[in-house]
Amino acid sequence: MVNLEVKNTNMSSGMQAFPMNLASILEHAARFHGDQEIVSRLASGGVHRYTYSDALTRSRQLANALQSYGIEVGDRVATLAWNEYRHLEAWYGIAGQGAICHTVNPRLFPDQIRFIINHASDRLIFVDPSFIGLLEEIQDEIPSIELFVVLSDKAQFPVTTLKNAIDYESFIADQSDVFSWAELDEESPSSLCYTSGTTGDPKGVLYSHRSNLLMAYASSSADAFNLSALSTVLMVVPMFHANSWGLVYSAPMTGAKLVLPGPHLDGASVYDLVSSENVTFSAAVPTVWSMLLEHMTTNNLKLPDLKEVVIGGSAVPKAMIVRFKQDYGVDVLQAWGMTELSPLGTLNRPKPATLKLDADAQLKVAAKQGRAIFGVQMCIKDDDGLELPFDGKTSGRLMVRGPWVVKSYFRNDSVILDGDGWFDTGDIATIDSDGFMQITDRAKDIIKSGGEWISSVDLENAAIGHPDVRQAAVIGVPHPKWEERPLLLVKLKDGASLDAQLIKEYLSGEVAKWWIPEDIRFVSEIPLTATGKIDKKVLRSQFITSSDA
Amino acid sequence: MVNLEVKNTNMSSGMQAFPMNLASILEHAARFHGDQEIVSRLASGGVHRYTYSDALTRSRQLANALQSYGIEVGDRVATLAWNEYRHLEAWYGIAGQGAICHTVNPRLFPDQIRFIINHASDRLIFVDPSFIGLLEEIQDEIPSIELFVVLSDKAQFPVTTLKNAIDYESFIADQSDVFSWAELDEESPSSLCYTSGTTGDPKGVLYSHRSNLLMAYASSSADAFNLSALSTVLMVVPMFHANSWGLVYSAPMTGAKLVLPGPHLDGASVYDLVSSENVTFSAAVPTVWSMLLEHMTTNNLKLPDLKEVVIGGSAVPKAMIVRFKQDYGVDVLQAWGMTELSPLGTLNRPKPATLKLDADAQLKVAAKQGRAIFGVQMCIKDDDGLELPFDGKTSGRLMVRGPWVVKSYFRNDSVILDGDGWFDTGDIATIDSDGFMQITDRAKDIIKSGGEWISSVDLENAAIGHPDVRQAAVIGVPHPKWEERPLLLVKLKDGASLDAQLIKEYLSGEVAKWWIPEDIRFVSEIPLTATGKIDKKVLRSQFITSSDA
Repeated sequence: MVNLEVKNTNMSSGMQAFPMNLASILEHAARFHGDQEIVSRLASGGVHRYTYSDALTRSRQLANALQSYGIEVGDRVATLAWNEYRHLEAWYGIAGQGAICHTVNPRLFPDQIRFIINHASDRLIFVDPSFIGLLEEIQDEIPSIELFVVLSDKAQFPVTTLKNAIDYESFIADQSDVFSWAELDEESPSSLCYTSGTTGDPKGVLYSHRSNLLMAYASSSADAFNLSALSTVLMVVPMFHANSWGLVYSAPMTGAKLVLPGPHLDGASVYDLVSSENVTFSAAVPTVWSMLLEHMTTNNLKLPDLKEVVIGGSAVPKAMIVRFKQDYGVDVLQAWGMTELSPLGTLNRPKPATLKLDADAQLKVAAKQGRAIFGVQMCIKDDDGLELPFDGKTSGRLMVRGPWVVKSYFRNDSVILDGDGWFDTGDIATIDSDGFMQITDRAKDIIKSGGEWISSVDLENAAIGHPDVRQAAVIGVPHPKWEERPLLLVKLKDGASLDAQLIKEYLSGEVAKWWIPEDIRFVSEIPLTATGKIDKKVLRSQFITSSDA
Repeated sequence: MVNLEVKNTNMSSGMQAFPMNLASILEHAARFHGDQEIVSRLASGGVHRYTYSDALTRSRQLANALQSYGIEVGDRVATLAWNEYRHLEAWYGIAGQGAICHTVNPRLFPDQIRFIINHASDRLIFVDPSFIGLLEEIQDEIPSIELFVVLSDKAQFPVTTLKNAIDYESFIADQSDVFSWAELDEESPSSLCYTSGTTGDPKGVLYSHRSNLLMAYASSSADAFNLSALSTVLMVVPMFHANSWGLVYSAPMTGAKLVLPGPHLDGASVYDLVSSENVTFSAAVPTVWSMLLEHMTTNNLKLPDLKEVVIGGSAVPKAMIVRFKQDYGVDVLQAWGMTELSPLGTLNRPKPATLKLDADAQLKVAAKQGRAIFGVQMCIKDDDGLELPFDGKTSGRLMVRGPWVVKSYFRNDSVILDGDGWFDTGDIATIDSDGFMQITDRAKDIIKSGGEWISSVDLENAAIGHPDVRQAAVIGVPHPKWEERPLLLVKLKDGASLDAQLIKEYLSGEVAKWWIPEDIRFVSEIPLTATGKIDKKVLRSQFITSSDA
């Protein structure tokens, strides 16, 4: 572990200590950008607008309401909601008051939601009317919840079997809008986000005021999100997912106009909001952008104000980068992060060397996940823990450390850092000499063959390049001599016919010879997870017999 | 005082603590921008170029050299040097090793230099060959200095009477380029800069790793210096002046190319460097920009790469803003800061509301000092300590607080914050409803000449020292090149006779040469206020014609 034995010089600096409290962000926004708008698309389809000044007033009222109720420093208060203004007030009101804002992801299975609410011992939960049914189902199994605060006013309060519920507006009504934010050690926890992972129970990542604030500084910088008072930010990435990429903090920090899309993320809805609110910047997963592109192409639409979209969550197809740029003048910026990283680790913006490359080579660089933002230390290591070179070829375990990287999971004693304080991201990556990182595979999907690694993702992409292949999936299967060999599963396009030999011949022009799978099988369906990724767990259970393992 | 009684939640967050060390900036630059250049114009006129990777290697060697010598955490090590690569290595090597880098301003009077070296108890001093004469003169009066390290190699080592001197290259030769940076509490002091102030002895501002690093984050952001890996930064602002506006940290943090101009700041030299190195961004006091404009106009030159110049130190004439924009396509950005603020407090970039104004109104906004960058809290107060409105009309004492604002001066017990933790900047300002701050009355009566301060009080006191002078008053009058020059008004003792030349000769033994007023006038009466102070308002109305202002 680094940084445990710090030297004390016995000489204090002449600077003010000034511990960071996230509420200082909203205070700054209200003071220097008081008239700037926060626009929320509601579930009803209507639009709510108010200002940073209004948001601050109501966040202070909420903080007073929480304090009157008896919420104390360190208590957990949950939210189960879309991106909208009351949810934003909850983030600032809860954390600013010293409690911990636990964002519950409504896309989890009810069993997981029950598990994380109990694990966090949440005392209150702020819930969107559309998720009430979900909580009604499990309310008897989440005994720590004392009160359900429904994100509505009294008039729109829904019929519910929830036993102790109140509408948000009644909860904060008559509360003073004067509040002294908690004077906390800045490493105090501010918020909690569980990562569902692939196996086992969800694990909680407990952010601090410090970690969120530092990441907001770094992520808003010119070579990251590049936010300013002239930006209009559409925050598509959900507040319940990976800390909303910190935009809840970085947008008000810079005085950007903030647009919150609520539940409607189809192409038409996103287009409508980007267009009517003159959005300049947005961040989301590729699926959202596919739907937007489809909608714009079909309807022959343009978005003259939109300048940049950041895409994370999974690799961006090069074709999408090209289409956004050529047809719409929009720069697509790849990013990489994870819940354990608050979440931002890298962002892809060009360097002087990049701009000297030809168009094809520039596109290759743009398809990488990008460079570490300052504050994230990053390296790749082999299985023995030795650092590997930044040569763009050697791949290894992607390791990170820094002030917004997880140290340990909430209420979990497992040691998750190596001896030098590095967190293993579970990704396999290369880093080139210019510092551009590229994820080549998930560690659990990489195929280890004769001591060398074969990227299942690269092999799938190569196979999909064949004009007759609709989908491809690769898993490693045990092999007596090579330890593992790739098994390629192919779903053909309608009407196409192919055989294994033809695919092997095709692949021999695309990948190293020793990567080519001996075993290729044709399937009618490739199983997907709820979020649309190839479900390799199912594939392994289908194609690896227990005698193999 | 705020923030003294912080609540402890007894619950630690799940984030890594990771105290900040300034050396992490250079490590990041070397790892992700290792090939990026640092270009130094030398005193000889030649140019030195190397990379962030080289700078890191040599900073580590220097840190080893300091450690071998016996420099310990908390020791003060001084520099007396121009902006060039060895000076940059000294900043990182000294602070990264845990010692404190004390930048001595060569423009101070020898008595002040002696005072601050003794006050800081500096053990070593890194000195540019051009300043050796200055130290030779006072070497017997600065007993704490054990060793003079001359910023040269062995071949260029000058003839000197300095008793214990070595050239920089010999000092770091044979040192390992492997070094483990000090693991410090991040509030440990990193650097020390004295402000000459208006009265009394210079006062030291002791920065910390934390304060410098946070300011680098904030000042590099899109609405401040807007630095990225595509920027080329000409750092005109001296490293011995106001912490070089943090550019020594923010440029490598973002991977910008860094150009260091050495001692030559005349129009031709600055033009040459901006042009040949394709500089996109620079920061300096107005005098430097006046000289550059003059040179370009006279010689009919252009600077196609230059996009933005930040101007601070004193108010920018509107004509300069217009000329830069109309004739050269360069945006002039006003900034405001002070040594006690590390130094950046505000920067002037437009808001959406600004862009809706007509050209004249936009220019009026652009001539203000700008908006507080996030991290600096700012208000104006009346003499009773009550906060005044942000209405653009009401003026008051400009007050600041935050993690890079001074708490107390070095080795000085004076209380300099008010009961709420605010530091009184000594400036009088308005703040408008959009948050744009404007200094209306310069810090009392200080004269800003060529970006440096001349204390009117000190000058008056020097003049009064003459046996024939009864009273003296100094005000600043506008000057086309130096922005302001002092005007000295003298009331003689009864029966005495003197002329301006004799007073100038007298003053030359009392103050720095460039302080000596060109204009000295004899008066029969000096107007006083009710409380017996010199009434400078009256003097200004008498001696500054409206055409000057």
